Amino acid sequence: MSSDLPVLYPLGIIGAGQIARMTHLACLKLGITPRLMAEAGDDSAALVAPDAVYGHPDALSAFAESCGVLTLEHERIDIGLLERLEESGVIIRPGTTTLRASFDKIHQRRVLLNRSYPVPVFAELRGPDDLMDFTGVFDWPVVIKAARASRREERSVWIVETQEQAMRVMSEQSHRQLMAESFQHIVKELVVLVVRRPGGHARCYPVTEILHTDGAVREVRSPAEIGPKIAAEAKDLAMRLADELDAVGVLAVELFLTNEGLIINEVAARPHNAGHVTIEGSPTSQFENHVRGVLDLPLGPTWANAPATVTVNVIGNYEGTDPADHLADALAVEGVHVHLYGKSPGRGVKLGHVTAMGDDIEQARDMARRAEAALMGKRP
Amino acid sequence: MSSDLPVLYPLGIIGAGQIARMTHLACLKLGITPRLMAEAGDDSAALVAPDAVYGHPDALSAFAESCGVLTLEHERIDIGLLERLEESGVIIRPGTTTLRASFDKIHQRRVLLNRSYPVPVFAELRGPDDLMDFTGVFDWPVVIKAARASRREERSVWIVETQEQAMRVMSEQSHRQLMAESFQHIVKELVVLVVRRPGGHARCYPVTEILHTDGAVREVRSPAEIGPKIAAEAKDLAMRLADELDAVGVLAVELFLTNEGLIINEVAARPHNAGHVTIEGSPTSQFENHVRGVLDLPLGPTWANAPATVTVNVIGNYEGTDPADHLADALAVEGVHVHLYGKSPGRGVKLGHVTAMGDDIEQARDMARRAEAALMGKRP
Repeated sequence: MSSDLPVLYPLGIIGAGQIARMTHLACLKLGITPRLMAEAGDDSAALVAPDAVYGHPDALSAFAESCGVLTLEHERIDIGLLERLEESGVIIRPGTTTLRASFDKIHQRRVLLNRSYPVPVFAELRGPDDLMDFTGVFDWPVVIKAARASRREERSVWIVETQEQAMRVMSEQSHRQLMAESFQHIVKELVVLVVRRPGGHARCYPVTEILHTDGAVREVRSPAEIGPKIAAEAKDLAMRLADELDAVGVLAVELFLTNEGLIINEVAARPHNAGHVTIEGSPTSQFENHVRGVLDLPLGPTWANAPATVTVNVIGNYEGTDPADHLADALAVEGVHVHLYGKSPGRGVKLGHVTAMGDDIEQARDMARRAEAALMGKRP
Repeated sequence: MSSDLPVLYPLGIIGAGQIARMTHLACLKLGITPRLMAEAGDDSAALVAPDAVYGHPDALSAFAESCGVLTLEHERIDIGLLERLEESGVIIRPGTTTLRASFDKIHQRRVLLNRSYPVPVFAELRGPDDLMDFTGVFDWPVVIKAARASRREERSVWIVETQEQAMRVMSEQSHRQLMAESFQHIVKELVVLVVRRPGGHARCYPVTEILHTDGAVREVRSPAEIGPKIAAEAKDLAMRLADELDAVGVLAVELFLTNEGLIINEVAARPHNAGHVTIEGSPTSQFENHVRGVLDLPLGPTWANAPATVTVNVIGNYEGTDPADHLADALAVEGVHVHLYGKSPGRGVKLGHVTAMGDDIEQARDMARRAEAALMGKRP
């Protein structure tokens, strides 16, 4: 089919998970058919894209040559390879300077610290000595993080209470680059999404609040229930950061709100799980605006469509419940938007999400939670 | 790919034009991958569907066997063939009783007249005698219509002023079954979309007003600027009709508002051009609700998201302007939703549509028209 496809906007997406699936759908609305590079044939986006190739990262340069502009949905790719492609003239958006700061959490922290952004105290853990140095100065618990994503759904954060626990994580994860950081007493976890064009024009979505269960984002509330001063500060911080990192497309800035103020947790240079709320919650979804930004097209409005919008993620359970089996029950929850990703059910796998809008967060949250419970076969 | 697809909702769609494309996108949101039967490889939906087959209508029974439920996006298929499939156990939604009334305009008129619905005076034109009989009683001009759709973008309605003009149409269209009807002095053209489940549960979208240029729907306004009494009457009429025809999925009821009241112009048992306005204009689009209805899933809300929503169709011109070339200019119109269908430009070809929402029809219309003009390379 690929030879018949219109090539006015020859966009290639590295990755074919649910982020790529929703980006793909946003492209189709605009008459653009992206090429996808999947890791496996049953990747969520590969199932629905007429032009997906399946390849080892080594096949990347051939894929890149077939596309005019490359973007990414995940960080599981060698940044050096991308840098060599960029040097050879491939247009990668965002560029590799932005991507390096997104891919490598230690590098990211150093970049942010150098520019005086608020980040937790951290240290690279090259071995037990680094751990001793860190824990000699800072209190337990300590957070240990892997600097890079490797496999999908793989754990990357551990909160350890003792030297022994810390050593066990370091030993088990000895193949990965690790860092330690001081544990934050978090009031709220926030995500600010900025979308930006190559020329620098940028827009910011309403600040969202995220809630975790078992290490996965379970719920996204938009807007975050924070005061206008904090919201303005969070947006300002994210917009400045997008400029400094020369972001293109979506930049997702994860923040901790602590009693001492805002601290940057992580930055991701791609559409973000928290941004699923923008599909119905804003006039232009993060996915469409990512595509617009990456293709240097005018950005769409990012304001809120409703006083409150809540997304609840549908995450696979141990029993292998398939939400598709319960679609009718979920659609019976009046006014809820159900998104399923077509994946095989499995424990911890993101299978879909539901979004509800309301006059306040409680109303929207209750609707979304009811629909999510229905999808997972839970009776109210 | 088809063997890997989830088959919990094995929906097949006959047709792969822009209606099927948007239905396909609505399916993907719900985690459903439909099978499409295209007429040509470059059909709008075939370009984006991973599971499209290209076949002559004769291949229909093989296609039907591969699907659990069949629905249609067009009327260019032999109703007798569908009836035989249905008799052999294939589930077709809506069923062939509804489809026959949708496909054959003469049969449709008779069905409506028998049930005392308001329709224009009409007569079948089997030959010149029928024309003489009709024009002996009713004034000129007379409307001549083909009873069935045959080829895409083919003309099916002629307004004739004289016996000579009428005879010329009859002679040129002698291969088609024709009908005559009295010319209506139309105040407004309205379309009411009803969506209905097999069990009878039905919902109605806000009444829309359509404006034509050169025989094609150019603009859709929602809600129609009519009084509440007319609106209620139009909805009631459409809801009753959906019940009587045992519609499943979308039933589109085209109405003429005349000085004598509402008259039914045509009924189509599928998502309708006027319903593109529901993608952003309502919480659930006509496409998603068609899929829900056809698969007997709970229907979504059909209310209006904004005080006014206007869709302007992007129709190919003689010069072959490609709206994709002007996408940036259209996206620069703040807040407009641009949909392109990926088709090759050609005169009269529906290439896309733009939708804008506003506080009133004028505001929304102006935005949508500006974006459409931009797409067609017209400077304001």
